[in-house]
Amino acid sequence: MSDKTMPNRTMDGNEAVASVAYRLSEVIAIYPITPASVMGEYADDWATLKKPNLWGDVPGVIEMQSEGGAAGAVHGALQAGALVTTFTASQGLLLMLPNMFKIAGELTPICLHVAARAVATHALSIFGDHSDVMAARGTGFALLASGSVQEAQDLAAIGHLATLEGRVPVLHFFDGFRTSHEMAKIAVLEDDDLRALVSTEAIDAVRQRRLTPDKPVLRGTSQNPDAFFQAREAANSFYDQFPDVLDGVMARFAERTGRRYRPFDYIGHPEAERVLILMGSGAECAHETLDWLLTKGEKVGLLKVRLFRPFSTRHFLAALPASVRHIAVLDRTKEPGSQGEPLLLEVGGALVEAVTKGERLLLPRVIGGRFGLASREFTPGMVAAVFDELKREAPKTRFTVGLTDDVTHLSLDYDADLDIESPDTRRALFFGLGADGTVSSNKASIKILGEETDLFAQGHFVYDSKKAGSTTVSHLRFGPKPIRSSYQIRQAEFVAVHAPQFLDRYDILEQAAPGATVLLNVPWSADEVWDHLNRDVQQTLLDRQVNLYVIDANRVAEDAGLDRRINTVMQVCFFALANVLPRDEAIARIKQSIADTWSKRGPEVVRRNVAAVDATLEHLYKVALPGAATANRRRPPIVPSHAPDFVQRVTRPLLEGHGDQLPVSAFPVDGTWPTATSQSFM
Amino acid sequence: MSDKTMPNRTMDGNEAVASVAYRLSEVIAIYPITPASVMGEYADDWATLKKPNLWGDVPGVIEMQSEGGAAGAVHGALQAGALVTTFTASQGLLLMLPNMFKIAGELTPICLHVAARAVATHALSIFGDHSDVMAARGTGFALLASGSVQEAQDLAAIGHLATLEGRVPVLHFFDGFRTSHEMAKIAVLEDDDLRALVSTEAIDAVRQRRLTPDKPVLRGTSQNPDAFFQAREAANSFYDQFPDVLDGVMARFAERTGRRYRPFDYIGHPEAERVLILMGSGAECAHETLDWLLTKGEKVGLLKVRLFRPFSTRHFLAALPASVRHIAVLDRTKEPGSQGEPLLLEVGGALVEAVTKGERLLLPRVIGGRFGLASREFTPGMVAAVFDELKREAPKTRFTVGLTDDVTHLSLDYDADLDIESPDTRRALFFGLGADGTVSSNKASIKILGEETDLFAQGHFVYDSKKAGSTTVSHLRFGPKPIRSSYQIRQAEFVAVHAPQFLDRYDILEQAAPGATVLLNVPWSADEVWDHLNRDVQQTLLDRQVNLYVIDANRVAEDAGLDRRINTVMQVCFFALANVLPRDEAIARIKQSIADTWSKRGPEVVRRNVAAVDATLEHLYKVALPGAATANRRRPPIVPSHAPDFVQRVTRPLLEGHGDQLPVSAFPVDGTWPTATSQSFM
Repeated sequence: MSDKTMPNRTMDGNEAVASVAYRLSEVIAIYPITPASVMGEYADDWATLKKPNLWGDVPGVIEMQSEGGAAGAVHGALQAGALVTTFTASQGLLLMLPNMFKIAGELTPICLHVAARAVATHALSIFGDHSDVMAARGTGFALLASGSVQEAQDLAAIGHLATLEGRVPVLHFFDGFRTSHEMAKIAVLEDDDLRALVSTEAIDAVRQRRLTPDKPVLRGTSQNPDAFFQAREAANSFYDQFPDVLDGVMARFAERTGRRYRPFDYIGHPEAERVLILMGSGAECAHETLDWLLTKGEKVGLLKVRLFRPFSTRHFLAALPASVRHIAVLDRTKEPGSQGEPLLLEVGGALVEAVTKGERLLLPRVIGGRFGLASREFTPGMVAAVFDELKREAPKTRFTVGLTDDVTHLSLDYDADLDIESPDTRRALFFGLGADGTVSSNKASIKILGEETDLFAQGHFVYDSKKAGSTTVSHLRFGPKPIRSSYQIRQAEFVAVHAPQFLDRYDILEQAAPGATVLLNVPWSADEVWDHLNRDVQQTLLDRQVNLYVIDANRVAEDAGLDRRINTVMQVCFFALANVLPRDEAIARIKQSIADTWSKRGPEVVRRNVAAVDATLEHLYKVALPGAATANRRRPPIVPSHAPDFVQRVTRPLLEGHGDQLPVSAFPVDGTWPTATSQSFM
Repeated sequence: MSDKTMPNRTMDGNEAVASVAYRLSEVIAIYPITPASVMGEYADDWATLKKPNLWGDVPGVIEMQSEGGAAGAVHGALQAGALVTTFTASQGLLLMLPNMFKIAGELTPICLHVAARAVATHALSIFGDHSDVMAARGTGFALLASGSVQEAQDLAAIGHLATLEGRVPVLHFFDGFRTSHEMAKIAVLEDDDLRALVSTEAIDAVRQRRLTPDKPVLRGTSQNPDAFFQAREAANSFYDQFPDVLDGVMARFAERTGRRYRPFDYIGHPEAERVLILMGSGAECAHETLDWLLTKGEKVGLLKVRLFRPFSTRHFLAALPASVRHIAVLDRTKEPGSQGEPLLLEVGGALVEAVTKGERLLLPRVIGGRFGLASREFTPGMVAAVFDELKREAPKTRFTVGLTDDVTHLSLDYDADLDIESPDTRRALFFGLGADGTVSSNKASIKILGEETDLFAQGHFVYDSKKAGSTTVSHLRFGPKPIRSSYQIRQAEFVAVHAPQFLDRYDILEQAAPGATVLLNVPWSADEVWDHLNRDVQQTLLDRQVNLYVIDANRVAEDAGLDRRINTVMQVCFFALANVLPRDEAIARIKQSIADTWSKRGPEVVRRNVAAVDATLEHLYKVALPGAATANRRRPPIVPSHAPDFVQRVTRPLLEGHGDQLPVSAFPVDGTWPTATSQSFM
């Protein structure tokens, strides 16, 4: 391990990955698709700004007409001997498949990056799961999985390094939104690190293999039944060796950075009887839950899969404790018609081979389940439920977790309230209107917290897919310990409501912890506000004995000449109330952040924001809670009482933010939805 | 079982499938790709001829700009409530994947037909394996496999019927070229059969679900993390039930036709200890070999997989004898990086679940191998080698069969000469020039043999992929027993050489059985011919004591005004020498076939062909073999002696037709081929 201290920075997964991929590439062919677009946008911006790659050249960034074209451009540039990358997801990845089969067949080094997203089936979803990546598992690409922003940066680099050395192309993936859009404080890889790790011999070999008229070769032949099979087997050694090549790169990476990854990372009890196997961001939550179970003395373990393919049975068996008797494999995808999801099948196949060979005498019991489709939450309660299921005499051999399946009864019961987060971790929630600046100022706050303190910090931003005008919820965590909570905050010590209309629309204080600080942006004074609240809000405030604050942020912003842009005002309130930095220091940092962000718009914009900062605190008031709820008015129903049954039964919980509690039976079997459901709102 | 006798006809797999698909469809969206193009061409021709479907309407046949467009047209027509089909293969299927995920997610009945073909990797190949189909196994389509022309017709129909009743869309596949282009005598499904079997209620339900402004619904929503997972699970019951739905259709099909299929068809010893599992045309050769092994008293069995997905563990376990201790699973595909191919993984997963549940106490030993990539031959010797491997103390748990792997040593040794074909089966080989009419007249001969006699008949036609001007080899089998030999003829009782230049180019008599009849089209008389043959040909003729005949077919054809079209002349010789029909009857049938084929070109063309028929036999001569080879001249080397090493080592065996004997080490690892190799031929 090097004694070099790496600089910390706070960024999201897309930026972390793009930064590495950009510096290690000469040609970047892109086509935007959520949630991977941001990586291409970064690359495009950096190229426009003439930011050099590792060798001092500005990569060529080419936007094509579709992902099919991007894959073709990638394939062509690779044949010309270039270092190439691309970014995609979901259907975009599907359009790349024909070229990917060829790129792999030709043993061409490339690492491409996928912000994994659900493939559209009964419905489209922009959210994250592994159904796109799994649709590419037959191409011959290696599949390398990251579970956090730090890992996404690190394994992006390891993917680029290993493909150069092993010639097997790499698809590096990380969970769409959960990781791609999560802000986290990470130890960043600097140019020197990448330069120290990349093999110049391997790059020379790439140049040697390029198509050039000076040394012509033929690639892309047509082969008949007499030749194809042997030629297809001729690449076996590269796949056999790749797990060791990767592990070697990982070892050198650890020497440089102190962070050791392996094809399979086992953590837990050395004589674990029950082991959970999974990959992606779910492994972070599983890790957190495992640590908690270990403190309770349970003989449990967790196998994080980094290298899904080539699936090395040898490395797998070496990592899996011989003591294991019960295995649960979790897949973040669904293949209707398979009797098991892809990771479950690989694990089963490896164990069957080990028993057939006599390398293991006993076949452990193996069960498998689906979780987290389309960014469905995956929480410690669900992990604990899976470990519990492994204890049963007759566990469900095929199951789902994270939903209520009242039709095919596959779902496991779980404790939705299980909260195992470290008491040191501070949790803050912000409800904003789409495009009102709340998310941006929270990202700025996370950067301040992450980069100016020793605290770890995490920001996760929940949008519905309606973009502007809808609700955004920012989930901020910060604290002295690493944060593995790859799920939304359900108990917050700080809740900020940036728009008063939310009070009558949602159960906005549902996640407020007892004694939480609640900040409302309302046009009412501390004296008036109580009488404007509905009875449900009043009762919750009293039940949880919150510390209630109000500010008329719109007036402060308008007075400072910021029109209705309240985000700076609310950010100042957060720092004032959250008590994580000395107030003066926090305000100085905010002002610096304002200067960094807005100086390109001219001094007047900066001046107005600074004025708003200075005016904020004198308009922030604590509200004394009365002894009892006084309002007669309840939170108005989100759906009128005359709305049709489907609207009452399905649309209402979806609008109220409780869609995840709807059981399977509430949904149409084939994605067919009634129309004209908004008529009843008119 | 119905006592209805079905009419027999002789046709290839593509025609058999297209005939069923056409009659059961209203919209057919096509884009041509080898080897599936023929199905689309048939549909297009029939629509042009106004041939009606089962309901008296002419299907709309639309050729799109690519398979992506075809899939989009399919999806759209399905949403309009139509009965739809399409035909594709290989990369064409890859382009359909995005729509297939949606079609399945929307539980939309369709049966599409794939003449399975290798996906291009290190090289393109137009030939058959399951790599395309397996790339689609995550879409949610059911995968239904046929192994012969009869099965392709029957399971095409069963696929259309079952998808209507079960709503799970079906991808029906059969091996490209081996089945798609094999001519075979089959019991054909008539309109009445299809009409009796198709569910009108299910078709009514399709109409009810169509998108129509009269009864608007919304399909194609965007779903967020709160809803997608439950909605995705809401379709489970359809997949759970589909194997039973299919089995029900198969049972009704059997009542009507006498042919009973099941999701898994087991044949063999009721207490088999060793069982082979596979699907596609390889199962036919395995069936033939199994019958032979059973006669030797071996406790062996064969499980033919018809319904690969939804993979029903219940049906699988019910079909697999409880006695089995050793299982070999063969996959006709390769996924570099998986530790097992797709069928192996499903079988392993099902067994692990059975053991975990306690439904099976012992895990059988399970090994898995690849065979037949890109139409590599799969023969009884290979099947026997797999059964032998299962007997070993320490079998190869992962293997290949059908090639020599001298690099990663995965290949099994096998007896390439094992010949277990029924002695009743007659085997004939014809060497022709591309586009010289040899294949067409052999297809006509097969039709005559199949449709005018009680014999079973099979025709397989080997082209290289160079189309016109190259060599074609026609493999004809006929005999009183069903023919399951899904591989090329290696011991022929009849060998016809339609062009004299082949004698100096190939070891043309390699497959001539001892005592075979050999017919040469040469410009020499019976007296002259011996002195024109090279010493290698002479020696082989003597060693095998063949019955040698010659004809100057070019002269007979020219004299009859047919220019150089010799196929009619050679066809007459075949029937005269093969002795399967009385000579007069055979000649009458040929003349009828000429009239059927050529009358549209006018009476003169028919007259000339008939004249050629009448003139043929008087120009056909038997040649008396001398006692010893007399020529000094050897068969000239196909490659000049000064050619470079790669040409000598690799190109030469490929040109000589022995490429399949080249070991893995002969091939580049990444498909890169030297250029300018033809220079040495100049």
